Parts: sequence; C-alpha cells; structure tokens
Amino acid sequence: MKGAPDERALIQRIRSLTGRKSFAGLTLGIGDDCALLVSKPGEQIAVTTDLSIAGRHFKLEWHPPEVVGYRTLARGLSDLAAIGARPLAAFLSLGLPRDLTEKKGRRKAWIDGFFEGLLALAEEYKTPLAGGDLAEAPIAMADIVLIGAVPRRRALLRSGARAGDLLYVTGALGGAAAGLAELGKLAARSGRTGLLHVPKQYRELLVAHFHPQPRIAQGLWLQRRRLASAAIDLSDGLSTDLTHLCEESGVAAEIDADAVPAYRGATFEQALHGGEDYELLFAAPTKARIPEQIAGVAVTRIGRVLRRRSGRARITLVSDRGRQPLEPQGWQHFS
Amino acid sequence: MKGAPDERALIQRIRSLTGRKSFAGLTLGIGDDCALLVSKPGEQIAVTTDLSIAGRHFKLEWHPPEVVGYRTLARGLSDLAAIGARPLAAFLSLGLPRDLTEKKGRRKAWIDGFFEGLLALAEEYKTPLAGGDLAEAPIAMADIVLIGAVPRRRALLRSGARAGDLLYVTGALGGAAAGLAELGKLAARSGRTGLLHVPKQYRELLVAHFHPQPRIAQGLWLQRRRLASAAIDLSDGLSTDLTHLCEESGVAAEIDADAVPAYRGATFEQALHGGEDYELLFAAPTKARIPEQIAGVAVTRIGRVLRRRSGRARITLVSDRGRQPLEPQGWQHFS
Repeated sequence: MKGAPDERALIQRIRSLTGRKSFAGLTLGIGDDCALLVSKPGEQIAVTTDLSIAGRHFKLEWHPPEVVGYRTLARGLSDLAAIGARPLAAFLSLGLPRDLTEKKGRRKAWIDGFFEGLLALAEEYKTPLAGGDLAEAPIAMADIVLIGAVPRRRALLRSGARAGDLLYVTGALGGAAAGLAELGKLAARSGRTGLLHVPKQYRELLVAHFHPQPRIAQGLWLQRRRLASAAIDLSDGLSTDLTHLCEESGVAAEIDADAVPAYRGATFEQALHGGEDYELLFAAPTKARIPEQIAGVAVTRIGRVLRRRSGRARITLVSDRGRQPLEPQGWQHFS
Repeated sequence: MKGAPDERALIQRIRSLTGRKSFAGLTLGIGDDCALLVSKPGEQIAVTTDLSIAGRHFKLEWHPPEVVGYRTLARGLSDLAAIGARPLAAFLSLGLPRDLTEKKGRRKAWIDGFFEGLLALAEEYKTPLAGGDLAEAPIAMADIVLIGAVPRRRALLRSGARAGDLLYVTGALGGAAAGLAELGKLAARSGRTGLLHVPKQYRELLVAHFHPQPRIAQGLWLQRRRLASAAIDLSDGLSTDLTHLCEESGVAAEIDADAVPAYRGATFEQALHGGEDYELLFAAPTKARIPEQIAGVAVTRIGRVLRRRSGRARITLVSDRGRQPLEPQGWQHFS
C-alpha cells in the first residue's frame, strides 16, 4: 500500500487494522511496491475492479461509513462469485477528502468506520486486504480490486449460454432497490441536510441494500459441479444483466413474470430492474439437476434461453398478458 | 470491463481500441465479470494499484490527455519493475466527468487521447489492458492495477537491504520535477486559464515528466541475476523512497552528494527530492558486480547502507561540507 508521505501515518493505521494474520496464498502484503500471491497448480488468476464514487454509487449522507466499506468489497467479491472463483486477496485504492480521515471530537474518523465495514466482510470471506493506494481527493471514491483463483477452463463465463438452456437466479430480487427507495423517502421526509438518521425499525428493510451477500459459495458450487453454462452477478439489475449475458452468448431469452422471486417489500419492477442485489443469474442445460437450494440459498428457475432472431427483442417477458419485449432498465445509480 | 448501461457504448469503443490481439497469459479479457490470467509454474503473482486524481497527480490544464494516460500506466509498470516482475496485464478503473468522454466539434474526446497514450505504452511493454471499470465522476480519476509474475522467492523486496550493502540508482534524477517546474513557470507566464500551450522547444525539457520510462528490463535483469538485496522505484523522490527502503529493511543509509546523478537541467534539490522519475533505487552486497549500464540505462553508485542507530538520522548526506541529516522531502504532488 502506497500513498504520499503525509499519508504514511494513515497507512500505518490501516496496516494495524488489517492485522498480521497470515493467509494461505498471500506471501507479501501491505508495505512493498507490490503484493505477492500464489495460486495452486492448474489454476487461473481472476481479476476484477469496481469503482465506487460518492454521489453516484453511495451518498455520504445516506450510507454510514461501515456500509460504504462493506458494499465496496461486496461488489468485488460478487464478480468473483459470478465466475466461480475463490477469493485470494483484495486491494483498495481510496481517495478521500481530508476531513473524512480525521476524528471529529469523540467520534471516530469516517475512514475508520469504512475499514471496519470492509474488513468485517473480508474476514467473513477469508479475503485479506493485501495492498492498495491512498490519496487525498476532493470527493470520496474507492476502487476495489479482487484477485481470485479458479481451475483452468472451469470459470463460469457470460458467453456460454446456449438456446434451450434454462435460466436461474439465487435468492430474491429487488431488495436493494426497495431499500434505496426507503432511504430516499426517509431523506425527503427528514428534509434536513447532513447525515440521515435511520430509525431502528428501518434496519430490516435495509439489509439487502446495506449488507448484500456475495454468492461466493454458490458460484463455487456451480463451478465445481460444472452445472452452469453461463453466469453473471446481478449488479445492474435482472433486465440489464440478462441482456449482457445474452449479448456475450449471442442468444435471446424469455422470462416468466410469475417466476421472478421478488424480495419481501420489493415491487415487481424493482425485482426486474433493481440493481445491487448481487444474486447470481445463471444458465444451465435442461438435463442439469439444479437443486432448490445451493449452500443455503434458494434457487429459482425464471425462464429460458432462446435462439437470437434478428428483428426480435433480445429479452421477452412472458405473463398472463402475453409476451412483451423487456428493455434493459438497469439501475443508473444516482445519475 | 464494466460500467453503467449508458457507458456500454464507450466500453465498446475502448474494446475496439485495445484490439483483439492475443497475449500469452491472458485467456479472457474485457467483456466478462473478471479477466482470467495464467502464470508459469513456480511463479508468484504480483499486484499493485495506483490512484491518479486530477488536481493532485495531474492537471487537466497542464497535461495533454495522452500524457495523463501514459503516466497512469507508467506508475503501475514501475511498481512491477521495482520488484523484478514481468507484466501480465493491466486493469483500469476510470472515473470521468461527462464532457471528457464527448467529442468537441472536430476535436477528439479527451478519453480517446487518454487511451492513445496509455495503450501506446501498453504496447511497448507488451502489457494488455485486460479490464476495469468506468463511471461518471465529478472529477477525472484513474486507478491503474498491474498484475505481474515473478519466480517464487525471487522478488526484489524493500526489506532485504543489509548494513554494508552499496546503494545504486538507474538513470538520472530530478528530470520529472524539473519538467514540472517548467510547466509551472509556463503557466504563470501565460496567465490564461484553460489548456496550457506548450511550445515545441519545451518538449525536450518535459520528456522525463511527460514520458518517464518504467525500468522493467532493469528490474528483471537484477531479479534474474539475484544481484540486488532490496529495491524500490523512485516515485516519491530519492529522500523519501530511500527512507521507505531503510524503514522496511530496519537499516540506515548515507548518500554521497557528489555521486547523485542529476538529470540535465535539474537542480541538486530536484534530484534529491523530486518524485516521479520512476528510476530504480537498489541495494547490493559489496561483492556483487554491478555493471555501469543495465539494458542500456546507466547505473550509478550513490551511497551505502548503514546499521540503524537510535538517536541518529535515518539518512545522512555526505558532502564536502560534512555530514548532514537528510529528511524525506518527497514530492507532495500538487497539495
């Protein structure tokens, strides 16, 4: 982990927060020009980066620092889950305004809360924070890098879906969007600027938005059993991410409206288009035996893969009102 | 490479810019949730991230977009050079205000210039841009991630220097700081706001600042011959980076003032404290035969490693005026 000289003290603090625990696969962490990792023979290295920017991916007034830290790492872990990789290490480039790195009276500094949230999730998924960069910036931003490992030729790709495959999702959809909508209402009602107070009774409504679970175990399960032909994580919303998967696979798809599992409290629209649920969407051949649960999380069949026909919609929604084209309307963050 | 739906068109443009050339070691690039890389048996994976932020690491008014792109990648490659790794792939998370992604009349968009500069250097060092993230941001920022490979237990670390070792640097120092000072004078004289016009005769003065050469070949040479006991790249300036190396090695050092190779046009102070030269600083046992050049670049002995004594300065500058403590005064970017 690097940073300008005036940031050395801060880096030392982060270094002490991350601890000196040893992790299999990580031979050199924070403190040198690079971190060094090892994978097992026959494994490929998976790499993903995700940028989170204040005002776009989170709001300093709405999201407590622990939540921003947690969600930053969750986004990256979810990309590893999508290809069926096991996490090796995380790296973080963090740009922050100076006041977020300073204590306010007896209140801890924003950055300490951020690392608490991030490191709690890192601990849960046995993913060491192995390095990164730190700089002063006019707005808060965090770029998370996840390095994972997956046996050669076994990664779940977006491009493997074939006409006739069935489509599945893990968990329930729209919960993160529903939570975000609640936050918006709460903010509108409070009318105040500054940090939003979230009453205790809202906490449950906000679980999916504040603390989404990356589906690492489910991705690994699918990868190890070679059951899925293609997979993607639902970061932008079902309509958008299914479009990505179909584009990369050169196919079309139809979704059965009644089958889409909406999160408790989420509308059908939120389940269809809401982003940041970080559930997995995957395709599997009809003969694959997909269980009702994978590693404790429900799996629901929501549709099937079709041949792509020019002039026809990429995605079709099938309901009792007939067949309708479904345009990608993925969540555009705060833009 | 990911990004919100409205950024898909831009990602397609970047994808076409990076081309479809195949690179050894890269099996899956832009277009999926992760990129997949392979290293050779017995190799470790090296990872580094570097954040560049407008107003802090570059100025949109001073640095042409090609230069910002080039320098962004050069910073990351230099970290691989410092540990003696060969580059496998680069990843880029890019946050940009919307107007930097749009064409201005007949002028190409800023982002196109940025990628031209970055990809030209990537081509030179055979480093594919394998993925990343893209988002709209209120200010321009780029986080570059470099993945490299180095044989197990052979990486050049900051922590290996021992009392008695000799200290060397590649190339000449202070050129980047001297170029930056020239830019500052030019800007003060022009008095205008907006993009700074840099007359042709300045171009040579600015080579070290605009187009520093990451010392990949030199780092690999040292690593393969096992000649260096420790190494670091000079990104923050000699006084600061030597302090880092000594701290990690638990040693002290002295520098011979007359021996420090200043870049043509650079002052002694710039050579001592100026950052962003991206030359290598390394330690080697006295018995190691270090040549006068490595892969075409001069190597200069500038001092030696001492035992650390409490109450004594970490770094001492030795000149005809005697011995003086040398405090780290590394370049603080624009802060």
